[in-house]
Amino acid sequence: MDWTELTNFAVSLARASEVEILPYFRRNTAIDVKPHHSWDPVTEGDRAGERIIRKLIEERFPDHGINGEEYGVKEGKSGFTWVLDPIDGTRSFVCGMPTWATLIALYSEGMPVVGVMNQPFVGDLFYGNPDGAWNNYRGATELLRTRQGVGISEAAAGTTAPELYRGERDQEAFQKLHKTVKLMRYGGDAYFYSVLAAGHLDIALDAGLQAYDIGALIPIIEGAGGAVGSWSGSIPAEGGNIICAGSQALLETAITVMQS
Amino acid sequence: MDWTELTNFAVSLARASEVEILPYFRRNTAIDVKPHHSWDPVTEGDRAGERIIRKLIEERFPDHGINGEEYGVKEGKSGFTWVLDPIDGTRSFVCGMPTWATLIALYSEGMPVVGVMNQPFVGDLFYGNPDGAWNNYRGATELLRTRQGVGISEAAAGTTAPELYRGERDQEAFQKLHKTVKLMRYGGDAYFYSVLAAGHLDIALDAGLQAYDIGALIPIIEGAGGAVGSWSGSIPAEGGNIICAGSQALLETAITVMQS
Repeated sequence: MDWTELTNFAVSLARASEVEILPYFRRNTAIDVKPHHSWDPVTEGDRAGERIIRKLIEERFPDHGINGEEYGVKEGKSGFTWVLDPIDGTRSFVCGMPTWATLIALYSEGMPVVGVMNQPFVGDLFYGNPDGAWNNYRGATELLRTRQGVGISEAAAGTTAPELYRGERDQEAFQKLHKTVKLMRYGGDAYFYSVLAAGHLDIALDAGLQAYDIGALIPIIEGAGGAVGSWSGSIPAEGGNIICAGSQALLETAITVMQS
Repeated sequence: MDWTELTNFAVSLARASEVEILPYFRRNTAIDVKPHHSWDPVTEGDRAGERIIRKLIEERFPDHGINGEEYGVKEGKSGFTWVLDPIDGTRSFVCGMPTWATLIALYSEGMPVVGVMNQPFVGDLFYGNPDGAWNNYRGATELLRTRQGVGISEAAAGTTAPELYRGERDQEAFQKLHKTVKLMRYGGDAYFYSVLAAGHLDIALDAGLQAYDIGALIPIIEGAGGAVGSWSGSIPAEGGNIICAGSQALLETAITVMQS
């Protein structure tokens, strides 16, 4: 299958959402808080971003399904479903940090086949499909390859925050990995998965993700030669405890360390 | 005193260093590791950035002192000393994350009077002096004001990483603050201090800073109406355990919580 048309369309959705989201960034916009176990903010930027993406999908592919963080599920009649997070990292967004991102995935029969991560304040867009993965930084496009042949004790890893490993078992698994790798970085949200695809980070992991948090990143990582898994047996495309690595060998070693 | 000329010069130093540093970003450049208690990388980007800044200072102000992270101290004959960190957050730099920054401070008789933080991959530059603080994002300049009137339980805070609080006393102080604030963010390096000045974050803190890690940020935060202190009694301009807040009242409350 030629993925060019669907990939270009996915990128155009991200570009269209920039115009809706950026006016709310660093503007001390009103914050609503979702009923949730922790402080889970949502802004008009999240909602406006998702609205334009849904509108453009419904115009172009009326029979595709849509699953968005803010406006929920619209069942489709084709095998295709768009899985959307207009602002992944809304906590970074409300703190003025340029590490949030717009995530757009196209699933076919339950598996993500096209993915886009866009950080429009930086001008940094990543996308992938079964043919490869690319970065576009302010108009210049480069093919992405993960870093290969890195041993676990030389690996640089990233996760959102140590306290997101709730429960003794996940906390222990995380601490085992933390002690084994060379470097653990925090606070990257989706960005860590894209710089992994670009060959600058070796491991990215997060506990308790939703499908819309990770779906878009899977084609980017796999398209760049990386591997996606879970340390607790969930299906990565559906969310859960996700770990990604630059190579299949490093992924397996990391999961073994976490489960030891 | 009119700070315009020295401030413009400080900004021009940051702009000149962009050209030297950016060619090493996301290029899997060679990493040297400094002898240090943790993995402390340095790249040719750090060295090239500092070299051009030192050269321009020596040409324009040959009697000014210089204290740079990579090339050490040059004593001056005026009361002025430039305190430099060409890449603050080298760990973020080598991981491809756009949250590192170039920090340039001008000290007069031991106190920072002009400060610049520049993130050239984003195009996001912050600067301050006794007359105020400003952000320049891709050519558009805005005056900065911190967020005022925020109580500690509503505060959003940021720090580089929880494990940087070494020793039981600092770890306990950090955990007390963590439990009191609404939100604790990680991984921002110097960026957290600038978004605090811009009114998007309420508290930024880090343990064990050097003068070149914090000097440039003090005029930005104070110029925007914020307050700079230490929870262990060090003089902030000299580094140590630094905490900054959007207002003097919030700073005092936060330090009281940490020392309770």
